[in-house]
Amino acid sequence: MTEPTSPAITAAILVIGDEILSGRTKDKNIGTIADYCTAIGIDLRQVRIVPDEAAEIVEAVNALRARYTYLFTTGGIGPTHDDITADCVAAAFGVTIDVDPRAKAMLLERHKPEDLNEARLRMARIPAGADLIANPISKAPGFRIGNVFVMAGVPAIMQAMLDQIGPTLDTGARVLSETIEAGNLPEGSYASALAEIAKAHHSVSIGSYPSMTQQGFANRIVVRGKDAEAVVRAQAEVERLVARLKQGTAG
Amino acid sequence: MTEPTSPAITAAILVIGDEILSGRTKDKNIGTIADYCTAIGIDLRQVRIVPDEAAEIVEAVNALRARYTYLFTTGGIGPTHDDITADCVAAAFGVTIDVDPRAKAMLLERHKPEDLNEARLRMARIPAGADLIANPISKAPGFRIGNVFVMAGVPAIMQAMLDQIGPTLDTGARVLSETIEAGNLPEGSYASALAEIAKAHHSVSIGSYPSMTQQGFANRIVVRGKDAEAVVRAQAEVERLVARLKQGTAG
Repeated sequence: MTEPTSPAITAAILVIGDEILSGRTKDKNIGTIADYCTAIGIDLRQVRIVPDEAAEIVEAVNALRARYTYLFTTGGIGPTHDDITADCVAAAFGVTIDVDPRAKAMLLERHKPEDLNEARLRMARIPAGADLIANPISKAPGFRIGNVFVMAGVPAIMQAMLDQIGPTLDTGARVLSETIEAGNLPEGSYASALAEIAKAHHSVSIGSYPSMTQQGFANRIVVRGKDAEAVVRAQAEVERLVARLKQGTAG
Repeated sequence: MTEPTSPAITAAILVIGDEILSGRTKDKNIGTIADYCTAIGIDLRQVRIVPDEAAEIVEAVNALRARYTYLFTTGGIGPTHDDITADCVAAAFGVTIDVDPRAKAMLLERHKPEDLNEARLRMARIPAGADLIANPISKAPGFRIGNVFVMAGVPAIMQAMLDQIGPTLDTGARVLSETIEAGNLPEGSYASALAEIAKAHHSVSIGSYPSMTQQGFANRIVVRGKDAEAVVRAQAEVERLVARLKQGTAG
């Protein structure tokens, strides 16, 4: 059995914002970044959502950047007093933060010099040593420092920033996935046999995901792995199992 | 200024599931639980999403249950081999886990005794000392142990479980929130004045939340706090600020 040989490239997401924790805003960025990582062969391994509080943000940045290849943050880089992400990331890295001339130049593409007040200049405050991530929509940039990518919380801007940083990321072997529709076959009817298949195919991961529709449960079995042949072999076994059970139910 | 005197009741959410991290399934439970907490006066302080891996789950359960009044988990309590939440929670608490007669009785409401195979009995495995949370939809229960509430990942079932545990929770003073529509006023035009208002009203928290529509930015300012009078006072100041700036823009 061929095992993947390239080291796994891993990532975490840190969502920063009281408005997500209060439920007032429903996050859309986690799903977008998760899809993006899967598409380019990065294993998203953890997500955290924390409030707009310096100690919480610094702690999470340091915990996650130490543990994963990349950390993507969203939120808290606007001009208002509750936007403290850049300062917290600087604190986490132990570097200074000040108005960055490159970032200021970007803001001047949108704002007249006389409109670049103190609040707007906050958006040009960038930790020392960081590279900028351009913001084609509202100009205020994100940035990369070390393995941390700091992006906006507004989904359209986050997406634009993600599209830019994507090509700069190291990626691993893409995880291939195949879905077998188990339909209304109860999970309990196939769980034992599926566990046996999972045991016999240890280079892939096999999950069973129930969901509910108006017609009752709609269960899906997903086979995931980096070795295409191994995925196909396991998929075939799962398909045989599901076909046998469906026939049994129908008969 | 009246400060809230009751101690804050806090909570965290732990979402367990590879399928959320892969992007294949988009989580809906975080927003539901966040809204629920806000409505009953519980401060949701952190969310984590971790994969279906024992070490990750145990670590997160122990980190979060030690730190917050309540921990709500979703996902991983079905009958298949990748459903390991109950075992991990037992490990986190250092207690044994076995088939619970009360949980088995619940499963027998749905399944004939001859259909209660080994896989389905997995759903009756409950850590020692836990109380059950009934599942009116598919019967397999969740459970509470200490300050940890273990619920299903299927949103309709999670919601039904949440409705049951809600009345058993200690709650704090409800956080009141008032939204002031800043519309297309740029955040940078009101950020400095808003920071002054925030400084002068320290018993409330004031946030500014940009979002984008087809017509451009649509910014909202939210004043949150437990002291109704303080919220109203700060809200009035923010409304005056926004009205003044809108007039300036129009004039």
